[in-house]
Amino acid sequence: MPTDLVAALDIGGTKIAGALVDGQGRILLRAQRPTPAREDGDTVMRAVEEVIGELTAGEPWGHVRAVGIGSAGPVDAGAGTVSPVNVPGWRGYPLVERVRAAAGGRPVELVGDGVAMTAAEHWQGAARGHDNALCMVVSTGVGGGLILGGSLHPGPTGNAGHIGHISVDLDGDPCPCGARGCVERIASGPNIARRAVEAGWRPGPDGDTSAAAVARAARAGDPVAVASFERAAQALAAGIAATATLVEIDIAVIGGGVARAGETLFAPLRRALRDYATLSFIRGLTVAPALMGTDAGLVGAAAAALRAFPEVSKERLRTAVNR
Amino acid sequence: MPTDLVAALDIGGTKIAGALVDGQGRILLRAQRPTPAREDGDTVMRAVEEVIGELTAGEPWGHVRAVGIGSAGPVDAGAGTVSPVNVPGWRGYPLVERVRAAAGGRPVELVGDGVAMTAAEHWQGAARGHDNALCMVVSTGVGGGLILGGSLHPGPTGNAGHIGHISVDLDGDPCPCGARGCVERIASGPNIARRAVEAGWRPGPDGDTSAAAVARAARAGDPVAVASFERAAQALAAGIAATATLVEIDIAVIGGGVARAGETLFAPLRRALRDYATLSFIRGLTVAPALMGTDAGLVGAAAAALRAFPEVSKERLRTAVNR
Repeated sequence: MPTDLVAALDIGGTKIAGALVDGQGRILLRAQRPTPAREDGDTVMRAVEEVIGELTAGEPWGHVRAVGIGSAGPVDAGAGTVSPVNVPGWRGYPLVERVRAAAGGRPVELVGDGVAMTAAEHWQGAARGHDNALCMVVSTGVGGGLILGGSLHPGPTGNAGHIGHISVDLDGDPCPCGARGCVERIASGPNIARRAVEAGWRPGPDGDTSAAAVARAARAGDPVAVASFERAAQALAAGIAATATLVEIDIAVIGGGVARAGETLFAPLRRALRDYATLSFIRGLTVAPALMGTDAGLVGAAAAALRAFPEVSKERLRTAVNR
Repeated sequence: MPTDLVAALDIGGTKIAGALVDGQGRILLRAQRPTPAREDGDTVMRAVEEVIGELTAGEPWGHVRAVGIGSAGPVDAGAGTVSPVNVPGWRGYPLVERVRAAAGGRPVELVGDGVAMTAAEHWQGAARGHDNALCMVVSTGVGGGLILGGSLHPGPTGNAGHIGHISVDLDGDPCPCGARGCVERIASGPNIARRAVEAGWRPGPDGDTSAAAVARAARAGDPVAVASFERAAQALAAGIAATATLVEIDIAVIGGGVARAGETLFAPLRRALRDYATLSFIRGLTVAPALMGTDAGLVGAAAAALRAFPEVSKERLRTAVNR
């Protein structure tokens, strides 16, 4: 029988996942809906309420003490609102208030999805035991989060660690965010694929022009494909080194689809880090693949709720997200 | 009559300053020596000991409970050692141990000079009342420090906030640190002057080719001088925006000789920040000139000691460096 539980929501542009999670990070019950991302805000909210409805239906709900939400960003944890880039119906949408109502008034903690993934990797994944870490997702976009001094560091609005939109090339290509030369503009999957195609790489008979296809070509020795991954690795290295120089992390954990390229990404990334992480106090910086897979968002949202509401279980808070 | 005091040391490549500081940040007694920067390590240490000797000579020393050191970096607060770039005789030099011995065994806190300046600006200067701030010095080099969640964030080794050596131009000019396109490589005083001279600016009859002379020419309308400050402002903006994106600061405080150019620097800096600080959660970011002047290092070293040793005065710790 469960004792105290938290409910977790992982809200992205494609799916809305929910779960009940115990103090050891085990998922006891799941629910999921596609995100009706092109519909109006209340329609999107109804999908969230259906997920919560499945979670509240059973006996375990009686043990739920708090709710954690990891949402596509930007989020505003102070205001309790979200404005996910890929969900245009939600702009300054009062997600925390609505979820609290659907969850019978239980306290709700909101963080960005990069922060949630970071909480999960620190609790049970590749950043476990590290007091100062950057965790990131390199996929369609590039996001991240920070562990500082042994604890999750969401920042005042829940967006800290947003490494995808720091500029590492101040004269570089315009980024949809409005700046230039952002890490995401160089290192995301679509940009790896675009750069390869622009430099003359052509897909195989299946017509697959994804970053995964470029990674396969790189493994087969295609120099244009290799070069596109090397450029992505260089941008990631500059961004990771900047983060380490600013806040003294000792590990960068990388997940997401692009990280599944394995050594095609990690080997040039380690080489490039030697070029950019030069100061004595960050020379020990390492990189590692993420370990938590697709449950990172749910487990991390649960960890964020445990951290925010220590009254749920002081014992669990300590083991969950503090050293 | 003083009650509890701390001793503060501000150690740079040019001078070694010391002071006794009270819980309100007032300086009661000063001592200073030139840094014999080209001599061997023990000769440099003797200058430090002479400064401490002047501080220990009077009656107030009996009230000193701890010592704070802000040193040119890199420092290693964990090991208690320093390796200042401009003091080649000190490499992994056990400064904390030596100062502790000279200070009668009192506890010693070591931070980098950028962190010390930050502690001072947060305690009594332009970052006062801000819970999340970057403070920086733009001078011969570019350094900095961070306030996060209301408290000084020195990082495990005391070097956090080292914004001068994050790359904002990953293909840019080589930096002496080994990386490329660092903020310091573009925005420091010597680089502002170098760039202006390379682009055809010529000094007046006094032959002054300092950044201050370039600033005077910019104020007089010289387009090459203006352009060199604009490029520095762009690099600073990219670095400040990156810091805000990573850790959600809401103010960047800038001191040092280059900041004395005033609006010649700050006007293009504010414009460039609009180009790089684009995400919703950092659009409120502001910049402000530092207020603490040349005493920032001493007052900040004192603040760092008060923070590290709350037993000195719990009341003062809270008013000094926490919200």
